[in-house]
Amino acid sequence: MNLKEAGIGEGISEVIVTTKSTSGEPNAAPIGIIAVTNEDENENNYFVRLYKGSKTLSNVRETNKLAANVTNDAVLFVKSAFESLNETYFSLFSGFPVLKEANSWTLFDCAFSEKRIKSGIFLFQLTPLAVKINRKEVKAINRGLNAVIEAAILATRNAIAEDERERTEREKLMALYARIVEKCGGSREKEALKILQEKT
Amino acid sequence: MNLKEAGIGEGISEVIVTTKSTSGEPNAAPIGIIAVTNEDENENNYFVRLYKGSKTLSNVRETNKLAANVTNDAVLFVKSAFESLNETYFSLFSGFPVLKEANSWTLFDCAFSEKRIKSGIFLFQLTPLAVKINRKEVKAINRGLNAVIEAAILATRNAIAEDERERTEREKLMALYARIVEKCGGSREKEALKILQEKT
Repeated sequence: MNLKEAGIGEGISEVIVTTKSTSGEPNAAPIGIIAVTNEDENENNYFVRLYKGSKTLSNVRETNKLAANVTNDAVLFVKSAFESLNETYFSLFSGFPVLKEANSWTLFDCAFSEKRIKSGIFLFQLTPLAVKINRKEVKAINRGLNAVIEAAILATRNAIAEDERERTEREKLMALYARIVEKCGGSREKEALKILQEKT
Repeated sequence: MNLKEAGIGEGISEVIVTTKSTSGEPNAAPIGIIAVTNEDENENNYFVRLYKGSKTLSNVRETNKLAANVTNDAVLFVKSAFESLNETYFSLFSGFPVLKEANSWTLFDCAFSEKRIKSGIFLFQLTPLAVKINRKEVKAINRGLNAVIEAAILATRNAIAEDERERTEREKLMALYARIVEKCGGSREKEALKILQEKT
């Protein structure tokens, strides 16, 4: 299956992954879906890297499923990175939580593939089970949206091990991204930056 | 008129601006379209900043028109930043060049608004004359695409006036963006990076 129409293309697609625990509690977190093109078959293979200690990993180990929700909403990315989204954000597909506001979602089966002990990363191969396209649109590139994503990734990176020089570099980059959001972003990007700055 | 459906939203939209000279020669260059929301009317006002010495500025002064072409194609952004696109890239709307592969284009009338002598920037107010939506889609955020745009902006920035420290900072950022493209980009982003690296 090729998921390009659902917005999941070559390389790494930044989406919001929704999962549920065996008790049914939904979770959402921004995660990259990796597409590796198989040239012989003109088909993609899909993978995801999940981190030890994350709610997404424990849910995937319990249910073997995740949904990749495609959205351009900067606020959704930042909120799902730093908070638990409350139930109003979710709708259910056959009992599985997806994001109401997603432009598309793809429900995947997750097969455990590899554990990298040193980095604490678990690699899963993904097989699409169902796809829903809610809304197609035209959208120009906005540097502010991109800068929010980069700032959120920097902010969630484990900062414990970094030295003085690395900390200075990170702070310089955060300031650069904040300037780009202020200059180029729309209201959602500016709101997302505000949330991000309150959390960090 | 609200151009959100054509992909030109709040903040600055990165598009490829097409123009023509009085003799009819087409030109394309990556430029930001600025939308300023008028809260009373729930409408946007649109502006563009054009630089002294650019082909886009001289064409706009000759014809008072530009078209904003919305695309996600990293190669188109880099090529139009560093080369003259040949005629095969263009189609004509009432004699005005637009990009064949654009997801949408908006033709604007350009009214000269302000000249900032020190920075060499000419500000124009834009009034939409015609809109065409060619293709709506769902597309997840790809950090590689964003990194190509940031790298292209850095590469086209006037580097003559920079000192040693600024040059080091720019090179560090370029290396960061190249790493993100290699890690997260698809084939178009990787091709765009290659073109960019050949040009700089």
